[in-house]
Amino acid sequence: MPTTVELIRRKRDGQELAPADIAALVEGYTRGDVPDYQMAAFLMAVFLRGLTKAETCALTEAMLHSGAVVDFSHLPVAKVDKHSTGGVGDKTSPALAPIVAAVGVAVPMISGRGLGHTGGTLDKLEAIPGFRTDLSLADFRRQVERIGVALIGQTPEIAPADKKLYALRDVTGTVESIPLITASIMSKKLAEGIDALALDVKFGSGAFMKSQAAAQALADSLTSIGQAMGKRVAARLTDTNQPLGKMVGNALEIAEAQQLLRGEPVPQALRELTLDLAARMLALAGRADAVEDGRRLACDALASGSALTKWQEIIAAQGGDPRVAEDDRRLPQAAHETVVRASQAGRVTAMDTEAIGMAAVVLGAGRLTLDSPIDPAVGFSMEVKLGDCIAAGDALVRIHYNDDARLPEVVRRLSDAIAITAD
Amino acid sequence: MPTTVELIRRKRDGQELAPADIAALVEGYTRGDVPDYQMAAFLMAVFLRGLTKAETCALTEAMLHSGAVVDFSHLPVAKVDKHSTGGVGDKTSPALAPIVAAVGVAVPMISGRGLGHTGGTLDKLEAIPGFRTDLSLADFRRQVERIGVALIGQTPEIAPADKKLYALRDVTGTVESIPLITASIMSKKLAEGIDALALDVKFGSGAFMKSQAAAQALADSLTSIGQAMGKRVAARLTDTNQPLGKMVGNALEIAEAQQLLRGEPVPQALRELTLDLAARMLALAGRADAVEDGRRLACDALASGSALTKWQEIIAAQGGDPRVAEDDRRLPQAAHETVVRASQAGRVTAMDTEAIGMAAVVLGAGRLTLDSPIDPAVGFSMEVKLGDCIAAGDALVRIHYNDDARLPEVVRRLSDAIAITAD
Repeated sequence: MPTTVELIRRKRDGQELAPADIAALVEGYTRGDVPDYQMAAFLMAVFLRGLTKAETCALTEAMLHSGAVVDFSHLPVAKVDKHSTGGVGDKTSPALAPIVAAVGVAVPMISGRGLGHTGGTLDKLEAIPGFRTDLSLADFRRQVERIGVALIGQTPEIAPADKKLYALRDVTGTVESIPLITASIMSKKLAEGIDALALDVKFGSGAFMKSQAAAQALADSLTSIGQAMGKRVAARLTDTNQPLGKMVGNALEIAEAQQLLRGEPVPQALRELTLDLAARMLALAGRADAVEDGRRLACDALASGSALTKWQEIIAAQGGDPRVAEDDRRLPQAAHETVVRASQAGRVTAMDTEAIGMAAVVLGAGRLTLDSPIDPAVGFSMEVKLGDCIAAGDALVRIHYNDDARLPEVVRRLSDAIAITAD
Repeated sequence: MPTTVELIRRKRDGQELAPADIAALVEGYTRGDVPDYQMAAFLMAVFLRGLTKAETCALTEAMLHSGAVVDFSHLPVAKVDKHSTGGVGDKTSPALAPIVAAVGVAVPMISGRGLGHTGGTLDKLEAIPGFRTDLSLADFRRQVERIGVALIGQTPEIAPADKKLYALRDVTGTVESIPLITASIMSKKLAEGIDALALDVKFGSGAFMKSQAAAQALADSLTSIGQAMGKRVAARLTDTNQPLGKMVGNALEIAEAQQLLRGEPVPQALRELTLDLAARMLALAGRADAVEDGRRLACDALASGSALTKWQEIIAAQGGDPRVAEDDRRLPQAAHETVVRASQAGRVTAMDTEAIGMAAVVLGAGRLTLDSPIDPAVGFSMEVKLGDCIAAGDALVRIHYNDDARLPEVVRRLSDAIAITAD
């Protein structure tokens, strides 16, 4: 068995490691036998030298098996999930999960919290009074068996190697590596016991991957590793050059997702992305013959109200107040509103979506470290979108806020983030 | 001030860091504010991305000033040292230091211990009964002032950043990096308060750098950084495709160095390398007009006996028995001898010098970790050199040993290390 230093040196020199060696490294690190400093050197070598497909598979497999893997093979229906690489204003999951489950496909969904400029599904769900995302793995399994869908946070049993590796990557400048991102995402998703996975890989000013080419490379890597590990995987790329939909902020986004579930008007981009992902999930699950079929089934679930009913079931099953689903005013409301207005007339030519996300963090809607508290009520309503022609004094963003002191900084950031060009 | 993660990311992306940023990183690491895992990621990024000359200078400077820097500027003579990158059988230092000091140039020499296949000057010196290499920096300074030369080990005050960084590089696969090696060597050497430095960079089967090109690159880097820091530096390359001289092992090598000092016959390569390095040191010191001049002065110091007298002064000053200088039998002697013989006739066409060094470690003459004990008496006498024509049954190596149990492994390794090709 090669020593840890030998494995670091081999990767440093661009050699391919054997799957058993990668497994030993991950197991040793998870147990604490391989120290952080050796793993840090290895991660930097991987960052700069890359991993082959076989190595990425081995890493994913080792991280997956560092913890519990849920088994849903006894369920007669297909199990499908969706993963997004993170956007601003992306509230598709709370709409998508009930739509797909209403059509009869199981959705065992383990989501994350917001960090930095991107929001997180868990924070949004927890804006619903009483809603619990910290179910045990046993309760998660029982709920999926009973109502076909559950939305929870990563439990300590799932992929502990990923938790430890992610924390180390964060402080060693080794986050933005396609094979490391792939293994991190896929190890957690495959632990859910799914048969198939729809991927929404973001690009643009609000995304981790700024260029479409980088997003495509990540999508290809995720698809290829997922398929190599025996899952059906489909990926789409989504532009994040402006927030998705109108609302940014936890309760505000739940309200917008519910508007979609209730069949009320929502921005076209949000509705399109949600239906497209639902259609892909249904096709992957074999519930629809093709994506077009899946889209029709998803539209039917919205039109018939069955998706909204499923959403109410989810809320009730996870301890929340199901009356929220029909009444957005039961969600936390910010005490104050103010409007950021255009200082000149012109066309909205660009948005720095990441900066808008960071303005939401400053407002209290997001967090910079995983233990900072968030305010579920605060956020933005985007009053313009890219390409809009506006007059001086027109509303750009409505801010829903509780804390006066944060407002000047938030307004400054929002004003800087929206480019208006005189025609 | 950029954060540590930002500095890691910049180096990872191939950017040049500012001297102040490198200084802050080294200071933070030495104090313990920058954790090992961040420094490990940084070192791997440096390994794979390199450092510019300005960055290597800044790193050397920061490591140098992490501890005490000896000041010999009040001495009226030049202060010169030699550094070798490590060979097998290289006993030049114990001969060179008294030769150069006898000519009237100060030699404040701080040496290392053997590690792995290469021997270390400190271990050799400590084979002399009573000889102390652990002088304080104050005693070191006083001895150089009094007799013009001292040979000690690295004290805790000298370049503590290098000690901590070297230990980390050793376990993170980041040893073989020219800028990191350069900063490690030069930070320690410049702390001695020298004006000039002769470098002996080894290449070949016994060296860290196997190829002449890699050795030349290291020599160029060391010279360039030393000169940029205001020192006179000259480097030579030395072939290590066989051990230097005849003897390998601590007391055996001191005996061979003493034979050279006493004007007795020693292998030509040993005498040549010693005189060449002495000549370069004297020329760098300005004591000789050119290397040829320096060589004449060094030969005179040997012929007149003044170098041997200086050697006796050194031994006496550092607590050893100065009668050793004239009588090798006062050095520790191994209890047993045995001879490894040629199994076939032919020509000695290759030696794996690193393997011969590792055989010496197995015998007890060297160490794999810095805390393993060594036996000063044991070692080899090389009975053949490259190109020799031999008959079957001729002696290849004479083994001086104390422990029967280690012998079969040592014999096997030596037999494998010497290639004999039938003509």
